[in-house]
Amino acid sequence: MISTSRFIEACWGRPHDKVPVWFMRQAGRYQDGYRKLRQQYSFLEMAHNPDICTEVSCRPVEELGVDAAILFSDIMIPLGPMGVDFEIREHFGPVIAHPVRTGRDLKQLRVLEPEDDLPEVFEAIEKICERLGAIPLIGFAGAPFTLASYLIEGGPSKNYLHTKRLMWEQPEVWRQLMDVLADATVRHLSAQVRHGAQAVQVFDSWIGALPVDDYRKYVMPSMRAVFAKLNALQVPTIYFGTGTASLLHAMKETGPTVLGVDWRTPIRQARSTVGSEVTLQGNLDPMTLVCEWDIVKEHSTAILQDMLGDPAFIFNLGHGVPPEAHPDNLKRLVEWVHQFPGTPASQEVADRAKGASL
Amino acid sequence: MISTSRFIEACWGRPHDKVPVWFMRQAGRYQDGYRKLRQQYSFLEMAHNPDICTEVSCRPVEELGVDAAILFSDIMIPLGPMGVDFEIREHFGPVIAHPVRTGRDLKQLRVLEPEDDLPEVFEAIEKICERLGAIPLIGFAGAPFTLASYLIEGGPSKNYLHTKRLMWEQPEVWRQLMDVLADATVRHLSAQVRHGAQAVQVFDSWIGALPVDDYRKYVMPSMRAVFAKLNALQVPTIYFGTGTASLLHAMKETGPTVLGVDWRTPIRQARSTVGSEVTLQGNLDPMTLVCEWDIVKEHSTAILQDMLGDPAFIFNLGHGVPPEAHPDNLKRLVEWVHQFPGTPASQEVADRAKGASL
Repeated sequence: MISTSRFIEACWGRPHDKVPVWFMRQAGRYQDGYRKLRQQYSFLEMAHNPDICTEVSCRPVEELGVDAAILFSDIMIPLGPMGVDFEIREHFGPVIAHPVRTGRDLKQLRVLEPEDDLPEVFEAIEKICERLGAIPLIGFAGAPFTLASYLIEGGPSKNYLHTKRLMWEQPEVWRQLMDVLADATVRHLSAQVRHGAQAVQVFDSWIGALPVDDYRKYVMPSMRAVFAKLNALQVPTIYFGTGTASLLHAMKETGPTVLGVDWRTPIRQARSTVGSEVTLQGNLDPMTLVCEWDIVKEHSTAILQDMLGDPAFIFNLGHGVPPEAHPDNLKRLVEWVHQFPGTPASQEVADRAKGASL
Repeated sequence: MISTSRFIEACWGRPHDKVPVWFMRQAGRYQDGYRKLRQQYSFLEMAHNPDICTEVSCRPVEELGVDAAILFSDIMIPLGPMGVDFEIREHFGPVIAHPVRTGRDLKQLRVLEPEDDLPEVFEAIEKICERLGAIPLIGFAGAPFTLASYLIEGGPSKNYLHTKRLMWEQPEVWRQLMDVLADATVRHLSAQVRHGAQAVQVFDSWIGALPVDDYRKYVMPSMRAVFAKLNALQVPTIYFGTGTASLLHAMKETGPTVLGVDWRTPIRQARSTVGSEVTLQGNLDPMTLVCEWDIVKEHSTAILQDMLGDPAFIFNLGHGVPPEAHPDNLKRLVEWVHQFPGTPASQEVADRAKGASL
């Protein structure tokens, strides 16, 4: 069945009318409405309340005209019911009460039963899908390495000292932890698809801390398992990390439908590195959104021209929307991206787009 | 004149007996002696005291047997006499009293006169060189982009929002700031060479925040000017940054003798990216030094085997020695690296080295 969504069609590399666009963290502090809600509720309260979660997940689609919504969530959320005691500290990130550093710590994690453990999340997903109509919802989960790094470090880290140490010195404990987390990622995203998500994105935000040889040895097996299982659901799967210039080919080999590229790797270089078998998503430097529109236009046009005629490209940022972004920039950017044709364009269409951008 | 230093010879790609090795931040908290001094003095007090600076700069050579010393310093040091009011906060980094964000802020920076402004630094350099004898001292300075990022952000940054904004929105102010800082870098390093430094390293630690197109437009011109002037001094010049996988070719084009590679880019990939005209320095993951020796040996051997027979390679870490490193690992690592031949090896020598490493 051919979807009516240009986002879904581009995921599969099939013909679509315009370059699709959505933004990581498109629900966030840059929005007046979001900031008002955050004065009343904590981040986790919002994510666990089906009505608020629905509201903040749908708003960017209605306000900006993006081609997909993404579930408002945090990668830590499935870890709560698995037995991890954590909080999310303002302007800092997750803080874990008891970091996982031994095989014994690991045994305290229990299997995620998504619908029993997090019914409010799936209630939200159903409400979001109903409200969105033809616009698809992207499911949201963390990847095993990035989840492991939080669990082991106890919070955000600059150098991943404890994570790497456990990985190298206790490879068997590491493998078990990755298996447990990969299982949770698959269960959580599969349930999101059952309840209506039409694509899923796996966030491996901190994977760029690893050299590729370590990635292949310690991470790739679990990511292959994750994508093998998720791809069986027949929805597009997206794999995103930052600082991944040297990892992109190995990440592609794990089997996602779409590879998210951060702003540091030129998208044309990413394409030549990974070949044509995978859709690319990215990669405007998010800091442009804090500047005047001309800066946004210049940088986004360079990306759009690099990918002109590429049948498998989704416009996004290279990381999340910063709180300081001007909402108007995002709105104009969606309109601008939609000026560019999505299918392998006839020369006439390509020329027209090129003219528009100069 | 052929130097007797295997480090200097490798910088120039000339024959040398063994793979040379030194470590970024080889003078640091992982050393008992250093920690004791830091109980009595602040970082800046140590860097500005010729006797202490000499002691901490020379100790790693004497304790570990590395092939070069590097001046104990911080990239912020020349900014003090240029009119920047800053402190270095423990476990945080530099904090600037009045961030530079306009052309007017910029006008308050004055030209660095190294010997007049920082006589204690050059006294230290002379003492270090005398104490080191045949072992060379590497001069130390920051690169314009990384210095600018501290000046503009007011301290360390996660996203370089203000830096990028100034760069994109006020390109003329940016260019002037880069010129001022490039001039200071050249003056400071030239003076270090006049007083005895036999090589210089330019630290552009945070340059990896930029996509390559921005690097070429906003940073490359000043880096070309820096290396053109420094290379005229006829000492090897080293250019180091982190997160540079997509920048390495452009960085090479700025003209350094040696390119430092962080741990995230496989050194074999760096070599194939930049070609054979530049010496490479790197790139062991510093976190291995916190682990058991076997982990250090495994990861360092992989690098040494990748570079076996490469006439232009200097072993180092991919970033600085972490405070948690085991001193014994560093000592054993120097011995291990010195097992590997430095010259384009005859097959027999290469085979012997390969045998030793398995």
